Amino acid sequence: MTYTAPVKDIAFVLNHVVGLDELASLEGFEDASKDLVDAILEESAKFTGDVLAPLNWSGDQQGSQWKDGEVVTPDGWKEAYSQFTESGWGSLSFSTEFGGQGLPMTVAAAVQEMWHSANMSFGLCPLLTQGAVDAIEHHASDELKQRYLPKMVEGVWSGTMNLTEPQAGSDLAAVRTKAVPVGDHYLIKGQKIYITYGEHDLTENIIHLVLARLPDAPEGVKGISLFVVPKFLINDDESLGARNDVSCVSIEHKLGIHASPTCVMSYGDNDGAIGYLVGKENQGLVYMFTMMNQARHAVGVEGYGIAERAYQKAVSYARDRKQGKTMLGKDADDHGIINHPDVRRILMTMRSNIEAMRGLGLECAAAFDRARRHSDPATREKMQRRGELLTPLVKGWSTEMGVELCSLGVQVHGGMGFIEETGAAQFLRDARIAPIYEGTTAIQANDLIGRKTSRDGGQGMSELLSDMQEVLVQLKQADHLDMKAISKRFEPAIASADKATQWLLGQNDATLPSATSVEFLMMLGRLAGGWMIARSALAALALKKEDGADHGYLDAKIMLARYYAERMLPLVESSEIIVVEGAESTISLDSAQL
Amino acid sequence: MTYTAPVKDIAFVLNHVVGLDELASLEGFEDASKDLVDAILEESAKFTGDVLAPLNWSGDQQGSQWKDGEVVTPDGWKEAYSQFTESGWGSLSFSTEFGGQGLPMTVAAAVQEMWHSANMSFGLCPLLTQGAVDAIEHHASDELKQRYLPKMVEGVWSGTMNLTEPQAGSDLAAVRTKAVPVGDHYLIKGQKIYITYGEHDLTENIIHLVLARLPDAPEGVKGISLFVVPKFLINDDESLGARNDVSCVSIEHKLGIHASPTCVMSYGDNDGAIGYLVGKENQGLVYMFTMMNQARHAVGVEGYGIAERAYQKAVSYARDRKQGKTMLGKDADDHGIINHPDVRRILMTMRSNIEAMRGLGLECAAAFDRARRHSDPATREKMQRRGELLTPLVKGWSTEMGVELCSLGVQVHGGMGFIEETGAAQFLRDARIAPIYEGTTAIQANDLIGRKTSRDGGQGMSELLSDMQEVLVQLKQADHLDMKAISKRFEPAIASADKATQWLLGQNDATLPSATSVEFLMMLGRLAGGWMIARSALAALALKKEDGADHGYLDAKIMLARYYAERMLPLVESSEIIVVEGAESTISLDSAQL
Repeated sequence: MTYTAPVKDIAFVLNHVVGLDELASLEGFEDASKDLVDAILEESAKFTGDVLAPLNWSGDQQGSQWKDGEVVTPDGWKEAYSQFTESGWGSLSFSTEFGGQGLPMTVAAAVQEMWHSANMSFGLCPLLTQGAVDAIEHHASDELKQRYLPKMVEGVWSGTMNLTEPQAGSDLAAVRTKAVPVGDHYLIKGQKIYITYGEHDLTENIIHLVLARLPDAPEGVKGISLFVVPKFLINDDESLGARNDVSCVSIEHKLGIHASPTCVMSYGDNDGAIGYLVGKENQGLVYMFTMMNQARHAVGVEGYGIAERAYQKAVSYARDRKQGKTMLGKDADDHGIINHPDVRRILMTMRSNIEAMRGLGLECAAAFDRARRHSDPATREKMQRRGELLTPLVKGWSTEMGVELCSLGVQVHGGMGFIEETGAAQFLRDARIAPIYEGTTAIQANDLIGRKTSRDGGQGMSELLSDMQEVLVQLKQADHLDMKAISKRFEPAIASADKATQWLLGQNDATLPSATSVEFLMMLGRLAGGWMIARSALAALALKKEDGADHGYLDAKIMLARYYAERMLPLVESSEIIVVEGAESTISLDSAQL
Repeated sequence: MTYTAPVKDIAFVLNHVVGLDELASLEGFEDASKDLVDAILEESAKFTGDVLAPLNWSGDQQGSQWKDGEVVTPDGWKEAYSQFTESGWGSLSFSTEFGGQGLPMTVAAAVQEMWHSANMSFGLCPLLTQGAVDAIEHHASDELKQRYLPKMVEGVWSGTMNLTEPQAGSDLAAVRTKAVPVGDHYLIKGQKIYITYGEHDLTENIIHLVLARLPDAPEGVKGISLFVVPKFLINDDESLGARNDVSCVSIEHKLGIHASPTCVMSYGDNDGAIGYLVGKENQGLVYMFTMMNQARHAVGVEGYGIAERAYQKAVSYARDRKQGKTMLGKDADDHGIINHPDVRRILMTMRSNIEAMRGLGLECAAAFDRARRHSDPATREKMQRRGELLTPLVKGWSTEMGVELCSLGVQVHGGMGFIEETGAAQFLRDARIAPIYEGTTAIQANDLIGRKTSRDGGQGMSELLSDMQEVLVQLKQADHLDMKAISKRFEPAIASADKATQWLLGQNDATLPSATSVEFLMMLGRLAGGWMIARSALAALALKKEDGADHGYLDAKIMLARYYAERMLPLVESSEIIVVEGAESTISLDSAQL
């Protein structure tokens, strides 16, 4: 069960679709030259293929183990993590001020896909650290930044997000953990659940970011503050000090990501865990959103990362496994099941969706990079809107599709797919968490229809659809059979999305839109994926005119886009009917009738 | 984690949708009175709820264990199986000649749904026995029937199907197991894999039905014969004799159905396993189809059976779990997540699809019952065609939906859904096998487009669509808002299916149709489900006019049908585009380009 990072495919998107060269021209991103990024991708491919991928299956089987409050990661993980930090893989996009490499988020996202393909359980540790770094960097005092960020950026300390409590999952208003001010710090008491890498043996210290309430805090989400709570306190000379009053009570027995410890964390069983306020009191939710937006994008990357791994396994099995006469085999002896039309259907569905999702994931990251670094303020503002609009699509759509594609990967293997040793089932088990954590798909959909669509009167959506129209014009002008086929389905799909958006904006309250919000999210995600893969096809068409073009490769890009348009975009059209007509019946029954 | 059989829903379909009263009027089915069937459903509900359901989770955790060729089922399974046979649950539809109860397959299928909801791993044992009984009853000599059927019908012996070999999965032409004639029997040598309940401790004997090749047999599927190979030979006085030369070499470590042993069986490691020919030489594949058609329908029942269990768990959790302000709650304190619109969407999707699938599963069984017992030969012929046409839909569509719905069931639970102890994940793990075994969805789709559609020039399909048109007329004539809403989506869906069928019939060879055959299957399955649930709505509307009608219940039936029409049938329309336009791009790449 090997993994070979799709460096060529990733570089294609960076260089020919989302405009890495233009990103590298922005002030502060000068280092992100094509040559450097190519070298990073190659090195990352080696590390993820040689070091992380071989630990994926053994990590699943062995799992992380809890004993007396300590968590032991599977064999080989500590060594792999050391290599990870030594090579600086966790610090690509972090600020150079704290030891990071200052590269665009787009480049970091391209690399992170490889982590999750190779070993999603492993990738979660730096994923969480990254969110914690972002929250501290954006909102904490200089003192906290100086104390925590260098080690976290380096990766020798990891970070966690502590939001959920037994009674407070999607609803953070119900958070009960207490924080009592004492001198320069606070004493934290409470229990947090589902804390990914809340305890482990990979790093010297673990920096918990914890949502808690001050004694006099207002009720609900307006009374939540954010605290830094280190596992080990830090002495003034920066050495590690006493153990803080925080412990891992147990870890969960889960469907997947067995090697990633999901911890129940207890704060303040004795005197109270010492914590430091991030930013201002009662602003915790706002700060947490910094962390969550970052993490949501990263979880979307997991969605297609794990699907890419499942695809590689499926296509390799389909080449090797012989079964029956094949319709598409080149001769009578060509019995690899890859030559059965329905196996092609599955592989094309996997591959084309992965390329569409990867395109969207990197486009979203590029939007955030432009929002940060572009010289034109109006562009920065528009790109911020774009990144925020695309985030719930990247998270919601890519993770739902991740599950679906990993399930298709199982199917390619037939009976073998159901046998655990084959490994295809692990990808499905692992993928299944992604539509749940960092906000379920329903939460993403609420974010999409509320904060990202209704709140700005549809401005962000209208800008997006207008950019899609431009691509449609290019497809039509290309005078090329496949581009025509793509535009034939892209055009009504854009129109459907526009109509569904107008319907949404025309509603008086959120009840009906909430009943079809997930359909709306999947519709927009699919369409946005179609937009990205159509741009990929246009880029391929242009590249075919260059000397020495790799026609086989570029033709495949075009055909994958056509397949996607003909087999995925029709669902956008049916989604229009579902969004508009299906809302009322969804909520018409009394709950007792269910 | 309890299970309460949906007796009212099942009886509703039997009595008001598929016409149990008319079935009971057919010669040989006189016993199937409403009263008797009601009593059977109630008793079955008790048995499955009290005995089978409590063993489901413990069975998963413990699993069946292999040791030195023996397989030990989980704690409590032997006792449960004894109760099962003592109550005659396995023999409902078997011929009275061999101790069966001679009831319609429709009634048996209604009961079998409960087995699979309660405990899919358990239900597989009698499911396989049933297939073996059918094959012997239809094709074996009287002597074999007399020797084996009474005990198998009683359930004290179980049956297995031995088709697959390492090199022969979907392609049975590659079967290599040998059968050498010796006197009145044959000596069987070879290895079979994926043999469900190939070895276990629930019954005194296990009767294997084995596909093998005679020494002089022609190559390919025309050279396969079917043999009865008992684990213990039978003495002339009907007592158990010597152990046959067949053994279980190992069992598989699987994603789900852990309690159901999936065995590698070795035949003839020593002198050869003694087997008895069923019917004629080289006719094995034809006979096996008897078994497989029966088993395929039964696996389709598993698909919605497991989804029903997942639904019950999800709806119960959604009522209990409080989280956030709910839009649909009756007052400000009504925080059960069932009152969040998207949770409703999930529950409505699960429930309406289950009702559609149950309707289709029972309609298919009723067609086979009519094919067997109807007094009019033309009706018998039409109903045979109908049952055969619906079988791949029941198997393919219901099992694919089973996976999707069980995954939605996980989603309702949020983070809890990913924790194994919750139990929601087990349903997803168990459900995942159903689209694979007894012929993958692709195999069902090939059967649908080939044997069931092209071969008769579309006759069966045209009869089916014409029956749907009649329901459409009734919907329109009802002069009722919800019936209008249903017909609004049912009408274009029928038209789409007709166009896709015509496209299929117009193709010169099977290559393009094979590239969209699974889409065609899902399209037809969804549409046929819509047909059934629309009939359910019409029946509910009629019943509402009766004195003492349970309006809350009947209104829910109507609203579920409307929901299904508005949210599922639009997919039938997009499927038309996908089937017709999407075939070419599916197979356009060279396999090396993937």
